[in-house]
Amino acid sequence: MPDLPISRYPVPDLATLPADIRARIDEVQKKAGFVPNVFLTLAHRPDEFRAFFAYHDALMERDSGLSKAEREMIVVATSGANDCLYCIVAHGAILRVYARNPLVADQVAANYRKADITPRQKAMLSFALQVATDSSALVDDDYEQVRAAGFSDEDIWDIGAIAAFFALSNRMANLIGMRPNDEFYLMGRVPREPKPKPA
Amino acid sequence: MPDLPISRYPVPDLATLPADIRARIDEVQKKAGFVPNVFLTLAHRPDEFRAFFAYHDALMERDSGLSKAEREMIVVATSGANDCLYCIVAHGAILRVYARNPLVADQVAANYRKADITPRQKAMLSFALQVATDSSALVDDDYEQVRAAGFSDEDIWDIGAIAAFFALSNRMANLIGMRPNDEFYLMGRVPREPKPKPA
Amino acid sequence: MPDLPISRYPVPDLATLPADIRARIDEVQKKAGFVPNVFLTLAHRPDEFRAFFAYHDALMERDSGLSKAEREMIVVATSGANDCLYCIVAHGAILRVYARNPLVADQVAANYRKADITPRQKAMLSFALQVATDSSALVDDDYEQVRAAGFSDEDIWDIGAIAAFFALSNRMANLIGMRPNDEFYLMGRVPREPKPKPA
Amino acid sequence: MPDLPISRYPVPDLATLPADIRARIDEVQKKAGFVPNVFLTLAHRPDEFRAFFAYHDALMERDSGLSKAEREMIVVATSGANDCLYCIVAHGAILRVYARNPLVADQVAANYRKADITPRQKAMLSFALQVATDSSALVDDDYEQVRAAGFSDEDIWDIGAIAAFFALSNRMANLIGMRPNDEFYLMGRVPREPKPKPA
Amino acid sequence: MPDLPISRYPVPDLATLPADIRARIDEVQKKAGFVPNVFLTLAHRPDEFRAFFAYHDALMERDSGLSKAEREMIVVATSGANDCLYCIVAHGAILRVYARNPLVADQVAANYRKADITPRQKAMLSFALQVATDSSALVDDDYEQVRAAGFSDEDIWDIGAIAAFFALSNRMANLIGMRPNDEFYLMGRVPREPKPKPA
Amino acid sequence: MPDLPISRYPVPDLATLPADIRARIDEVQKKAGFVPNVFLTLAHRPDEFRAFFAYHDALMERDSGLSKAEREMIVVATSGANDCLYCIVAHGAILRVYARNPLVADQVAANYRKADITPRQKAMLSFALQVATDSSALVDDDYEQVRAAGFSDEDIWDIGAIAAFFALSNRMANLIGMRPNDEFYLMGRVPREPKPKPA
Repeated sequence: MPDLPISRYPVPDLATLPADIRARIDEVQKKAGFVPNVFLTLAHRPDEFRAFFAYHDALMERDSGLSKAEREMIVVATSGANDCLYCIVAHGAILRVYARNPLVADQVAANYRKADITPRQKAMLSFALQVATDSSALVDDDYEQVRAAGFSDEDIWDIGAIAAFFALSNRMANLIGMRPNDEFYLMGRVPREPKPKPA
Repeated sequence: MPDLPISRYPVPDLATLPADIRARIDEVQKKAGFVPNVFLTLAHRPDEFRAFFAYHDALMERDSGLSKAEREMIVVATSGANDCLYCIVAHGAILRVYARNPLVADQVAANYRKADITPRQKAMLSFALQVATDSSALVDDDYEQVRAAGFSDEDIWDIGAIAAFFALSNRMANLIGMRPNDEFYLMGRVPREPKPKPA
Repeated sequence: MPDLPISRYPVPDLATLPADIRARIDEVQKKAGFVPNVFLTLAHRPDEFRAFFAYHDALMERDSGLSKAEREMIVVATSGANDCLYCIVAHGAILRVYARNPLVADQVAANYRKADITPRQKAMLSFALQVATDSSALVDDDYEQVRAAGFSDEDIWDIGAIAAFFALSNRMANLIGMRPNDEFYLMGRVPREPKPKPA
Repeated sequence: MPDLPISRYPVPDLATLPADIRARIDEVQKKAGFVPNVFLTLAHRPDEFRAFFAYHDALMERDSGLSKAEREMIVVATSGANDCLYCIVAHGAILRVYARNPLVADQVAANYRKADITPRQKAMLSFALQVATDSSALVDDDYEQVRAAGFSDEDIWDIGAIAAFFALSNRMANLIGMRPNDEFYLMGRVPREPKPKPA
Repeated sequence: MPDLPISRYPVPDLATLPADIRARIDEVQKKAGFVPNVFLTLAHRPDEFRAFFAYHDALMERDSGLSKAEREMIVVATSGANDCLYCIVAHGAILRVYARNPLVADQVAANYRKADITPRQKAMLSFALQVATDSSALVDDDYEQVRAAGFSDEDIWDIGAIAAFFALSNRMANLIGMRPNDEFYLMGRVPREPKPKPA
Repeated sequence: MPDLPISRYPVPDLATLPADIRARIDEVQKKAGFVPNVFLTLAHRPDEFRAFFAYHDALMERDSGLSKAEREMIVVATSGANDCLYCIVAHGAILRVYARNPLVADQVAANYRKADITPRQKAMLSFALQVATDSSALVDDDYEQVRAAGFSDEDIWDIGAIAAFFALSNRMANLIGMRPNDEFYLMGRVPREPKPKPA
């Protein structure tokens, strides 16, 4: 279905984009083999594009007590709670690849309590979902429970900040009707995938 | 109450901060007469600080069909829905100043339907609140209603993107227990305020 | 903005009101320096007016284990949960005056968990909010938690009954579109206020 | 089950009560043949008792465009939404008697949309339930819909004020664990009931 | 009111029904003295009728650690949560008969926490209501709490499966507008009822 | 991960099962190439097993105005709303196969409003989701909207009854912790699948 719109907004011609944005898009294209639609659709607003990906990278690429797969679990679980099609599908793919596990993304998107993950990861997702859905009710006891699962205060910032960033991301995707690339649906489900790139 | 903590996380010594962050903080200090705590508390993570304020400025400083006061109304209304103390108090102050109206912020934070604002602004806030609280349910009819109130498609992106960005901001403030500066509470309530700076 | 309507219903001419109601209004006018709109708007129905203020006074003026500021905290916190503009603004003013604290009302209206109040007061507001929003789920354990914070059974009646009375009051204000007087917004925020009167 | 407590709070000995309260209780006893527990349990606080019944009578005994049965429908429907056992059972009995209909109370308590009532009454209950559960969202259109069903502005005040008063009443009953008298359960279900008294 | 429709769908003439369905209906008619409308209305789809009552009987007639009255309590409590008029009224009648208690059905339909039932039964209903309203959040701790109240794992299956079956039943009744027979409202409220049949 | 439990309850040895149940399981094994865990786990209670699959077949195998793919869409969309891992994964697979569309199941599970389906199918899912999540609020207007999308009254029964049956099924799967077979996750995503069997 190559002709379905990927955004409610105009998608810029790559040739017209500022050089830094084009470079970023070229880079992801080379690594993933295609351009995830989040890059094309957000490029409609270059300044917001730059801030969005700078924020994304600051959280998702930094050294952290959370593995990259764990960070993607947070994305998939909170995007599931927000019913964000783009983020569930695109980050589900990335999660499968990072975790080398073809099942975990569908599990976490549906109900992390039933997923094949560790108790530590369940505590992480429980905290992340509270940030995503009811952050004003956070009290000391919530921090202590996630600390008791082995997370440092900096890890907790990571958990909460990823949930917060994808609160933004989910709303932008829903706002503009961002369509996930068809390529994401199968990625990481069968052996010997080409190496993906985070979207 | 100068000794109450302003964050659950360490607040960096200004002298230790990277030069660009220090420069940004110096600038806001000069204009506002004090440093809003969002700058001090988020400086704990310089890369996230940079992305956060780049995103903020991209939305709140750009040329837009929305006035600066209208953009702050979106911040205050959605922060009210998310029970975010920092954002209600800090952006309530900014809204009072931009709108030159000492009442509107408390009205919009409590219930925009009862606020002294125009029908156009009520349509704007209705759409913003749906992005903030139930973005996955957005359908064509919602866009048409806000268009019927006189907003262009780019305005609608602004409305939704501000609601989305403060979905992030509210969650970060709740996560780290960000405390609003005492100065914000009175700002814009009495005549002849010194010029404020957005926080 | 003196010409905005203060009710969806007719506001009676003071001269036409029964003597006891006029006396009550004269009294509050003398003490506060203005007539809070709740008096003018509810006077449309004299019998309901009399019962309303009799109930109010029975709870808010009685000897109690709760200070007057604590009782107003309950009003502001539960009115915040009910998004009642009139009660947040009017009782926020009274709370600031009784507590001699210019910040606490905005804090409690937004999120009592972040307010500069004691753990005892947080336990009080947690119980009050359950009465306000989910009273049918009250079980023994809820009473024990608020008792453990130092409240007697009579105090607990006070907490719950104030939350219950303002469940009524918030709904009446929302029903008739009761507008808060402009005077309330600034009251208690700057030193040397004239003595207020509860509304 | 005569020994089950009717309140979490002490129930005063009738002999110790102020004369006006005793008189009110004697009167209801004579008419109904028993004393509804709301009178006994609220008598623990005489001033609140007086205000409560003054408010009740002001709304439920006044001349109104709503019949007494319609007013009790509002009580039963909103008490159903609030899961208030006392009010559903006691006012269900009164509704059956006033409406001379043994089925309507159970219908309205469960789901007014399926009840054997008129479209006008369904519009009335729809408005009442919005006041009971989401009064801050009331907008002009809601008033117009209930007006279109034939209600005057004064009728609308009655509808909303009854919903508001029982928001208080439901919370008080839940707070103190008010137990309905066994007599209410059967009242109005079989022919030739003795004349009841509102509780 | 004998002429009110009992379903939004055609109600088949008994003579036209398959023999096994007619036999089942004749049997319930003989025992109860009337045909509960669930039999008449679901007979519109014979295969679904057969599966529905086979499922009902498998759960409600089997040997179980739960008494028949306890099973009906689960039906009434979860149907109350789902606002299902047919099931509250019909199974409320059956519960009164099985429990030989004229009060318990109205109590459990309104708020099981206030009902005259045992702590064990309250634990049972708490678990049943979680299955009815939030089954995806079930975790080990929920099972342990209901086990601690004295229920075996097979009992827990019964509790959950009854809640699950009436999740179906409530939705079917709401979908087709199934009307409870007038006979149910009074059944079990006065001494010496004729023996009823489960509906 | 072949050793993870597929149920909180004992899974019977096939050899011990009644002949009719064994036959049913053999049949599905032959057609699908494996035994979906719903058959193995529900066989713990043979009578409930028989009723469950009789109900399933009565709805999912009957002649209907809804295609088999449309019926599976209802299952996937309502199971998504109920966060039921087993049903999302197993019926997602069946939907992909029936619809010959590798993308539609993930879309409908996340947010049917964004799925590549027809307006008629969106109207169908909107009605199904109301039955699944808020059936007591159904009014005439809801039926008229789905009729306006081209559905007959019998189709509407099908839509609602499938939503109702999976309300049961989702709760049973969540109750017993039913684990989806690994085979489902990939089924229908790549060309030339072997023919599946409904689970």
